[in-house]
Amino acid sequence: MEENYVGRERNITLIMDFYELTMSYNYFKLGKQDEIVYFDMFYRKNPDQGGFVIFAGLQQLIEAIENMHFSDGDIEYLRSLNVFDEDFFAYLKDFHFTGTIYSVKEGTPVFPYEPLITVKAKLIEAQLIETFLLVTINHQSLIATKARRIVQEAKGRPVMEFGARRAQGYDGAHYGARAAYIGGVVGSATVSAGKDFHMPVLGTMAHSFVQSFDSEYEAFKAYALTYPDNCVLLVDTYDTLKSGVPHAIRVAEEVLAPMGKRLKGIRLDSGDIAYLTKKARMMLDVAGLHDCQITVSNSLDEYLIRSVLEQGAQIDSFGVGENMIVSKSSPVFGGVYKLAAIEKDGQIIPKIKISENTEKITNPGFKKVYRLIEKETQKAIADIIAFHDEVLDENQDLTIYHQLDSWKHKTLYAGTYEIHPLQTLVFDEGKNVYPHYSLDEIRIYSQQQKQLLWDEIFRLEYPHMYYVDLTKRLLDYKLKMLAKGKKGH
Amino acid sequence: MEENYVGRERNITLIMDFYELTMSYNYFKLGKQDEIVYFDMFYRKNPDQGGFVIFAGLQQLIEAIENMHFSDGDIEYLRSLNVFDEDFFAYLKDFHFTGTIYSVKEGTPVFPYEPLITVKAKLIEAQLIETFLLVTINHQSLIATKARRIVQEAKGRPVMEFGARRAQGYDGAHYGARAAYIGGVVGSATVSAGKDFHMPVLGTMAHSFVQSFDSEYEAFKAYALTYPDNCVLLVDTYDTLKSGVPHAIRVAEEVLAPMGKRLKGIRLDSGDIAYLTKKARMMLDVAGLHDCQITVSNSLDEYLIRSVLEQGAQIDSFGVGENMIVSKSSPVFGGVYKLAAIEKDGQIIPKIKISENTEKITNPGFKKVYRLIEKETQKAIADIIAFHDEVLDENQDLTIYHQLDSWKHKTLYAGTYEIHPLQTLVFDEGKNVYPHYSLDEIRIYSQQQKQLLWDEIFRLEYPHMYYVDLTKRLLDYKLKMLAKGKKGH
Repeated sequence: MEENYVGRERNITLIMDFYELTMSYNYFKLGKQDEIVYFDMFYRKNPDQGGFVIFAGLQQLIEAIENMHFSDGDIEYLRSLNVFDEDFFAYLKDFHFTGTIYSVKEGTPVFPYEPLITVKAKLIEAQLIETFLLVTINHQSLIATKARRIVQEAKGRPVMEFGARRAQGYDGAHYGARAAYIGGVVGSATVSAGKDFHMPVLGTMAHSFVQSFDSEYEAFKAYALTYPDNCVLLVDTYDTLKSGVPHAIRVAEEVLAPMGKRLKGIRLDSGDIAYLTKKARMMLDVAGLHDCQITVSNSLDEYLIRSVLEQGAQIDSFGVGENMIVSKSSPVFGGVYKLAAIEKDGQIIPKIKISENTEKITNPGFKKVYRLIEKETQKAIADIIAFHDEVLDENQDLTIYHQLDSWKHKTLYAGTYEIHPLQTLVFDEGKNVYPHYSLDEIRIYSQQQKQLLWDEIFRLEYPHMYYVDLTKRLLDYKLKMLAKGKKGH
Repeated sequence: MEENYVGRERNITLIMDFYELTMSYNYFKLGKQDEIVYFDMFYRKNPDQGGFVIFAGLQQLIEAIENMHFSDGDIEYLRSLNVFDEDFFAYLKDFHFTGTIYSVKEGTPVFPYEPLITVKAKLIEAQLIETFLLVTINHQSLIATKARRIVQEAKGRPVMEFGARRAQGYDGAHYGARAAYIGGVVGSATVSAGKDFHMPVLGTMAHSFVQSFDSEYEAFKAYALTYPDNCVLLVDTYDTLKSGVPHAIRVAEEVLAPMGKRLKGIRLDSGDIAYLTKKARMMLDVAGLHDCQITVSNSLDEYLIRSVLEQGAQIDSFGVGENMIVSKSSPVFGGVYKLAAIEKDGQIIPKIKISENTEKITNPGFKKVYRLIEKETQKAIADIIAFHDEVLDENQDLTIYHQLDSWKHKTLYAGTYEIHPLQTLVFDEGKNVYPHYSLDEIRIYSQQQKQLLWDEIFRLEYPHMYYVDLTKRLLDYKLKMLAKGKKGH
């Protein structure tokens, strides 16, 4: 099989916190390993104080779970730690995931506190997938979300992902490019991502190319001769307006024009973007190069892009590096994975995590989450979390409740709204039943799903806070558990 | 061969910006591919406005370069882009790195603008390694540097790396753990890092463990029975002081004491750390558990650790997650890779990148960098960058110059200082000649090298800015090139 950069053959099983193993060994010694439990993966805060998150990384999570196994070398290593016994190693040697997983579809806009992934599995299995589940989803959702913000502010102008060199490791570059594409960039500079994910790769030249010739003009000329149909010249190696742009124009006239070709574009990577692009545009236009596009790529993010466009900068496309590939202004997506219920004698017993920080209190039970769409506008009104066996009926009035305060509620009237389940079955007792979507399909799906959201949710600052509410039954149960929990365990 | 998580068998060649290929193809078509060039890898700003950086990632860079090749699948993919020709693919198919590389040793404290890595290679070879060279060094140096700051503020208390789930991808967790260990943590929760890098792995239990039992006491008891010699209990699942600590004490008395064992520790993961640890310490001491250690792990970084210790928090060790593994407060290390010289007819022709931002101007030429140590104190005075063929003599006075301003200079007197080359040969015409150091050796080396620095460089805020200066000959040459460059190319 052809090697790839991550994919199915790479064993990432040991991207695992050690406590998953110490806990699992304990369960194993107590004979608890086959107890059925329910875990929810959710998050509490939108990065950059934004209005929502783009859920991403599901495909890689599926591959990781399908490929999950402990190799002989893994077990040999664990044996060397002198913490576990041979019975446990025999168990690990045969380990594979046999549980059931529900997940939000990749590309879906999601909100704090709703279960994005729900795992129903044997206790040890549910525990051992925790770390790589979180790192996979946390990373890609973070970058997809950041890319979405940046692309939004470019207002229709193409945005390219150029960040590999500043990524946090190879996977940061590789999967980051994938996530950015889901978030809306038109392509990436990272070749491995182009290869593995069938997404566009882009790139022209660095300053070193220009420097490696005796003069800037010679460098531009050489490039134009090799790529006459796709000639984009980097104009800021020496002096953008005095040297770079005039040389680019000269190449357009002396090299490309005689071949019947046009200069496709110039790129600026430093300096005052607003001023330089306006001047460059004028110079290009005076030379009759109206169709020559201007790309900029200097430490851009959503705020700077908004600002330079407001200033009238003459920009046709953007290349964005470090601010996107590590989500620099908000580099952590804090997805968590919390126990929600345990089966005992065929009964599902809800579990709760109590905390003095109210935002750390969990929603108990095996739950389902739905998106409520207003029929008249076809816009999302709220998401609602319910126990898995609650029947919601569009033909009934539905009252939805704040996650903690029972006096905060809202009633939707029968016939005015639709109920759409947000999660779908991904693993059915260990078997992957989720279709393999192409990256383009995921990207388009994400665009479509965003159209269900009100504009106010897209604001960079102080976005409208979308409701994620509970059913009455779930809220009542939760409040009862909280009251009981305060009395001690 | 046993699979591993990254190592020698993983082909990361295509973690490459596409422009490396478009430029290389151009060089190839022009017959420039065998021109010898010199590139410097350096950086401009310390993360977190700190005083220095810990250089890390060299071992992985060496492995990546040794393993660099274009597989059949890689070439098939590149062919599908319809940009390059078959001659170029034949060249890529046989490609391997044949150049010479000098590098600072892994673990060395380094400073802005000095060449950390210098590559002398054929033009295409030097270009094609750029992206993965940068991502490797940028990522690990960032995390090692952040870990160093956090460990420093713990003032001798052990710090553990717990961040995998919030890392930016699997490599972020895996190599991030390695880098954190170089930076001074005592171990990591990430099992893969323990396996591949022979570093300590650590971990006990999560809240889900406690929740999975009918009561907190039963969970603690089960854990104590399985790990009587290493029993650390997580006490904040329900209520730290009313439930968690009392249950831990009860387990110490009722379960461990009869076995002749002691409760090793408790861990707090939420709440007001200063208050809770003081109260917990009192409760433990009253129960005679003076030797029971307190670990905390709640969104810590160097500033919070400093603050809670100043407040008298009773903490024996720290677990640090997201703030370390992504260097949250400063998540980008901006290492760059710039052309410094080209050989023409056996002559080395220095090259410069000029910019209106003076901090983006490069130092031209094939250079070497030295650390100057004051004999009397055995402390580093400054680093100095010289042309490769300049002879510096400790028995002569040495005047060192600011990188741009010739009126800023300082003279060291003969016999008062030592000159230590900072770089060492790593690849000699394609052959790796650098010893394989164990991670512990690198970590110890880093500790030793830090002892050469004055205390003032370690300040979190407004550290002393260490001098990285030039020789007179290098400064003069640079100023001459700048003057000439302004006249245009």
